[in-house]
Amino acid sequence: MDWRNQITKPSLVVWPERVKNNIRRMKQKADRDGVRLRPHFKTHQSARVARWFREEGGEAITVSSVKMALYFASQGWENITIAFPVNIREMKDINDLAGRVQLNLLITSSTVAEFVSENLENPVGAWIKVDVGYGRTGIPVEEDGKIRELSRQIDSLPRLDFAGILTHAGQSYHISDRGQRAALYREVAERMGLLRKKILADGLERCLVSVGDTPSATAAESLAGVDELRAGNFVYFDAQQLHLGSCQEEDIAAAVVCPVTALHPERGEVLLYGGAIHLSKQAEPHPRIEGQAMHGYVVAALAEGWGRIDPANYLRSVSQEHGVARLERSVLEQLKVGDLVCVIPVHSCLAVDLLDMAITTDSELFALDFS
Amino acid sequence: MDWRNQITKPSLVVWPERVKNNIRRMKQKADRDGVRLRPHFKTHQSARVARWFREEGGEAITVSSVKMALYFASQGWENITIAFPVNIREMKDINDLAGRVQLNLLITSSTVAEFVSENLENPVGAWIKVDVGYGRTGIPVEEDGKIRELSRQIDSLPRLDFAGILTHAGQSYHISDRGQRAALYREVAERMGLLRKKILADGLERCLVSVGDTPSATAAESLAGVDELRAGNFVYFDAQQLHLGSCQEEDIAAAVVCPVTALHPERGEVLLYGGAIHLSKQAEPHPRIEGQAMHGYVVAALAEGWGRIDPANYLRSVSQEHGVARLERSVLEQLKVGDLVCVIPVHSCLAVDLLDMAITTDSELFALDFS
Repeated sequence: MDWRNQITKPSLVVWPERVKNNIRRMKQKADRDGVRLRPHFKTHQSARVARWFREEGGEAITVSSVKMALYFASQGWENITIAFPVNIREMKDINDLAGRVQLNLLITSSTVAEFVSENLENPVGAWIKVDVGYGRTGIPVEEDGKIRELSRQIDSLPRLDFAGILTHAGQSYHISDRGQRAALYREVAERMGLLRKKILADGLERCLVSVGDTPSATAAESLAGVDELRAGNFVYFDAQQLHLGSCQEEDIAAAVVCPVTALHPERGEVLLYGGAIHLSKQAEPHPRIEGQAMHGYVVAALAEGWGRIDPANYLRSVSQEHGVARLERSVLEQLKVGDLVCVIPVHSCLAVDLLDMAITTDSELFALDFS
Repeated sequence: MDWRNQITKPSLVVWPERVKNNIRRMKQKADRDGVRLRPHFKTHQSARVARWFREEGGEAITVSSVKMALYFASQGWENITIAFPVNIREMKDINDLAGRVQLNLLITSSTVAEFVSENLENPVGAWIKVDVGYGRTGIPVEEDGKIRELSRQIDSLPRLDFAGILTHAGQSYHISDRGQRAALYREVAERMGLLRKKILADGLERCLVSVGDTPSATAAESLAGVDELRAGNFVYFDAQQLHLGSCQEEDIAAAVVCPVTALHPERGEVLLYGGAIHLSKQAEPHPRIEGQAMHGYVVAALAEGWGRIDPANYLRSVSQEHGVARLERSVLEQLKVGDLVCVIPVHSCLAVDLLDMAITTDSELFALDFS
């Protein structure tokens, strides 16, 4: 059956062969370098895609919220890191999780460590969140005294099992040069390695190092030097990763299929049913048109997946439900109202979070909504 | 009961007194000028808020999708306009709706009119979508010959009851001067009025004029000259509308409450649990800091609602789940992990669409998710 016949509104389309290749490639790279892949499941948020990860081996996963942890726990995943500083208002659900799975939490301060320890009913793994220059959260890596003190405190607190130090070098998303991203990966591994040495020298039994961002992990020649990689976006990639050079076009494994709802040939545009509530408001600078934002590439919806990207075909604006697609005349002339096109999203993680339904290119429907 | 005690994660907070005032004010303005208010329910997407509209009178509503129409039909709303060009792939649900409520659809071309007429089982009201300069969709108002021809065609087609001409002057969101927005309202009413005259001169029995955008409707001294106003955002307003001057700060009736999850006093910031999947990626230029984007104002979460805006306290960045709030020292010093703050979102419609749960400041919980 042609997957396109099942589409009535904006939906995620997933290309299984590409997903499996992306998973296999990252898993092999991690295995080769002795690093545990703990993939971030926020990118796909799907039990279906999770099974493809399981087929490649690996039991440990990363999620970004307590809600997401509860969902994957209910799907049989038993080793889960919530890679977000503990929200102490969710202790009830955290306790529920800690009683069912090997749960790992992120600690950013002494106060939080004490609160969590006091309010836990079961043991959890505790990571110290370290900031290696992204400037979002965590204790700056330079403040090694503070980090060492916190590690000893965690080690001494009941129900907290000190796991190690964890960071997300999100600045990699702003480094366009692949070589510089590879250098960032090495630098982060080195700085975190030095910190680990100091913590171990203080007498702690173990201190693992966990890192995780797709742009530096894909650029790095070797992942060696850390214990764990939490990258997630590589499962689907997207226009942002393509621009960065984290992937080839043939690696992009998810798109948003949108019905055409109006034709505006006089201005070289069509209206898509597909807007900010399906793709997000995230934009990238258009790679060829100075000063022009772009909200996704428009490609053909094909029986086997989707067509090639031509930067001339792109979403120039999105409002709540509307997407305005600027298209080459030859493309536009072939479209009529009710036809489908695919949009390669700027940021696949956000599109996945926004959409309710997904379909594979071999017509397997699956839900994306676990709320 | 203090509403804050029920909050564990990012949620919408709705201030009932302000909502009711906003509804009453717009309803009275419309009544005074003989215009029917057909509020756009995409802003609140809630049966609870819809009841406050009902209390002020009015049976007719606007929605932005078939799904939203199905939801409000199930809640007893019997006169619904789907203000999005018909997505002909959803004819099954459209037929279902047309059999249950007075349904109104937007037509942008002759082809769509024919398709819809042929595939409908019950009559619907049909509006021609006109573009008055926003450049998103619709037939440009200058092409009056085309619009007149389409109106006659619709009038002749079975199951399509020609309602009139409809437009959304979304360019008002980019006009910072209130007087110019009022002038835009008058200009749109005038141009649509002239078009109506021509259509009626062609022998059609009725041709209503429907307009709808909050920035021009709030700026206009009088709404007269049109038959129907479809504004929606005025029910809550937001930072964008405040910047435009569409509302006073005291009119803003919805905020997103977020737990504080980490403190970074050394850089004058705190980390909020509240990011792009709660607030959207939509940003506004910071009103006082050149070149700085802002993703919402951070205000105190109070028992009676929330505190005053100080532009020095704002979200400087959002990633998927994280929001980085820059705060005045005096504000930051009073916060600890686990406390709550409120964020006045840049665009309330998108925040509402993203969030699952809402609570009123008098502690009434209600769901926002009808998927």
